[in-house]
Amino acid sequence: MTTHALHTDLYQLTMLASYFHQRQHEEPAVCEMFVRRLPKNRRFLVVAGLQRALDYLRGLRFTDAQIEALREVPHLKKAMTPDFVEYLRAFRFTGDVWAMPEGTVAFENEPLVRVAAPLGEAQLIETYLLSTINHATMIASKAARVVLALGGRPALEFGTRRTHPEAAVDVARAAYLAGFEASSNVEAFDRFEVPARGTMAHMYIMASASEREAFRHYGSLFPHSTYLVDTYDTVEGVKVALDAMGTGVSAVRLDSGDLAALSCEVRALLKARGRDEVKIVVSSDLDEYEIVKLTKSGDFDVAGVGTRVATSDDAPALGGVYKLVQIGGRPVAKLSADKVTYPGAHQVYRHEGDGRISFDTLGLVDEASYEVLEATPLLVPAMRAGKPVLDDDLAKARVRCKSQLAKLPEVLRVIERSDEHEHFFEVRPSEQLTRLLESIKAARREAA
Amino acid sequence: MTTHALHTDLYQLTMLASYFHQRQHEEPAVCEMFVRRLPKNRRFLVVAGLQRALDYLRGLRFTDAQIEALREVPHLKKAMTPDFVEYLRAFRFTGDVWAMPEGTVAFENEPLVRVAAPLGEAQLIETYLLSTINHATMIASKAARVVLALGGRPALEFGTRRTHPEAAVDVARAAYLAGFEASSNVEAFDRFEVPARGTMAHMYIMASASEREAFRHYGSLFPHSTYLVDTYDTVEGVKVALDAMGTGVSAVRLDSGDLAALSCEVRALLKARGRDEVKIVVSSDLDEYEIVKLTKSGDFDVAGVGTRVATSDDAPALGGVYKLVQIGGRPVAKLSADKVTYPGAHQVYRHEGDGRISFDTLGLVDEASYEVLEATPLLVPAMRAGKPVLDDDLAKARVRCKSQLAKLPEVLRVIERSDEHEHFFEVRPSEQLTRLLESIKAARREAA
Repeated sequence: MTTHALHTDLYQLTMLASYFHQRQHEEPAVCEMFVRRLPKNRRFLVVAGLQRALDYLRGLRFTDAQIEALREVPHLKKAMTPDFVEYLRAFRFTGDVWAMPEGTVAFENEPLVRVAAPLGEAQLIETYLLSTINHATMIASKAARVVLALGGRPALEFGTRRTHPEAAVDVARAAYLAGFEASSNVEAFDRFEVPARGTMAHMYIMASASEREAFRHYGSLFPHSTYLVDTYDTVEGVKVALDAMGTGVSAVRLDSGDLAALSCEVRALLKARGRDEVKIVVSSDLDEYEIVKLTKSGDFDVAGVGTRVATSDDAPALGGVYKLVQIGGRPVAKLSADKVTYPGAHQVYRHEGDGRISFDTLGLVDEASYEVLEATPLLVPAMRAGKPVLDDDLAKARVRCKSQLAKLPEVLRVIERSDEHEHFFEVRPSEQLTRLLESIKAARREAA
Repeated sequence: MTTHALHTDLYQLTMLASYFHQRQHEEPAVCEMFVRRLPKNRRFLVVAGLQRALDYLRGLRFTDAQIEALREVPHLKKAMTPDFVEYLRAFRFTGDVWAMPEGTVAFENEPLVRVAAPLGEAQLIETYLLSTINHATMIASKAARVVLALGGRPALEFGTRRTHPEAAVDVARAAYLAGFEASSNVEAFDRFEVPARGTMAHMYIMASASEREAFRHYGSLFPHSTYLVDTYDTVEGVKVALDAMGTGVSAVRLDSGDLAALSCEVRALLKARGRDEVKIVVSSDLDEYEIVKLTKSGDFDVAGVGTRVATSDDAPALGGVYKLVQIGGRPVAKLSADKVTYPGAHQVYRHEGDGRISFDTLGLVDEASYEVLEATPLLVPAMRAGKPVLDDDLAKARVRCKSQLAKLPEVLRVIERSDEHEHFFEVRPSEQLTRLLESIKAARREAA
């Protein structure tokens, strides 16, 4: 088990030290992670990254080397007293975590994760939790749109080279979770059993004396393969592959040019040759928008998607935040004009009708009102007293995501660009929550 | 030394196996990494990520566990013969690498890295090289724009929570390399000695009975600090900090609202109180565009920049590619209409005049023509026969970057949005290179 204790913002440690030195670090706190507003071009989120976050919490401790490193931070010098160092040495995450399991469809202002822990612990973990869940949820949410756009055709994730090498492994996992069929990333196969796919690059063809010779060599080792046909001339390349490799050609990949026109031309050629079973794989700067166009004007079976899913390029950051909602049993709220947070510990209740998601209620954890009687609570226990209790894995999350995407109402399935202020889905605060917020506002007015 | 042998696309392994089985894997090859076209909103690149790439090459080997994992990949089954497994077990990178050192300013079509190695090795390393250099160069190039926009004011990197936790460490490093003063990321301090900064979050204030009490507690442990003043009311918050902490207030941080107006108001208050030495730190969704506005209409000393530098949100992918330019001593080129690559092994020659960069010549490695007599070659030896030979580190790279940014002509320093097709800097192919390209085109025409 590795520890990522230093994968954090320095201020988490200065605050932790300050809580400790003022003896506030054990005060019971509740924090929640949520997204205030969906990014532009997103009508829903697919939650991902929880497993990595739970692994972090489980492994969290400060090694001697890490404590020595902290002593070297100029700003921390005065804080590293013997008793605080002792506290760091013994530090473990002992809190409770509730979360939406990976693959859950979520919306704005809904807690994806709720942490109940001593204040010092709840504080320290903020950065890593946000980092891992923001990144993976951003990717899964983008990938889910690609899956919807493909309407049942398989998607392959090829984006490793366009993102950080470690991020790429989690990109492959998040895309698979959201419904991609496979990834080119071999580490993701080893670590998460994400199916690995890939055949050849242009370089392979160029390193050979001819395209035909390259195909022959490749086919002698990999008898049923996808052939990359666009190194010199796409349609000619298909002919070379069919002539040289015959039934060994199970698919052809088109990676440049006018994919709509070329894919139709290639299909006609395949039909003329009686090779209806040969799949056409398209790639090259694809995303959900290009795929929607290609499904109308092109003719393909599989899409390879790289850069744009690996970077979520039309919404490259998810602004998930992590806020204190309760301290020492007292609900707290931020009341600034543009950034209201709801006080108290929350549950999200999902209402469905006719097999579709109809709306969500944001309520309190102990909510038992008529409003949520028929609804499904989305946050489930993930850790109790620092021990993982959620029986989940990537395969289950993928099934969950698929079933939730099938329940999306039509308006959320639309693949059009949209503004971040556009509103497509209703998250209603419960009456009980509304009353609590009003009472806190009234108390604040009185105090002022 | 860790190995990242599986951090690759599967097709690198299928191609490697195919080269091996056809006995082509030892053929001498030269590959180059370059960016065909600068992304929108970028007028230059700052090279970064080389150190991580060299560490990868130095540590590259297949462990027994990794070889077992490869045996499980369905597509590789037939390729994993005993002799190929033996080859993988003994695999080391034995090639030569030339590269632009980190912190170098670079442009389109210029090789950032050149690899001369046996074909199998040159092929396998493509994915990791692209991944690490694309990501770090993207971040450093964005960060350099923030540094230019600030015109000497310090920048702090706060973006960890909005990117993958491992990518965040390299974001901190790349931003520091490009001229940022510090980062909040503690792991980057431990790993790379990037100065660590940070004080308190809104949560810290909200966990206290009052803002005043929070400041008092914090100041008792950290006597000279930056106080976060906008939890309730920014200007009131400054008064509370000054009243409660006096000369302990070395800076105030404004993290919300109309930063231009608030920073001026806060400066006036500080002057009225005779506290001219107190710094004003601004943050909240800043980037180079917002900073240009704030330098005109606001009054601040330091900028904290997070999400937008950590994701390079206005150009969230760098499309660096890695192409075969020579095989078995024979220069090769891709001649498709939209994607010409220059044949042969290249050097970039930089011409300066009046202390500014004037233009670059893309020439061949052995170029000795009058054209490049006065110019500086930018690619330097980084590895020889798999051994690192470049004496460089982050501190040197940061100095190099600073000196190169100072040499940027005015047109490249402009912080305006621009289209990816706009052209701001000339990279001229040398006469010798032009002749080589023409002779290859002629030979191709003849063959066709």
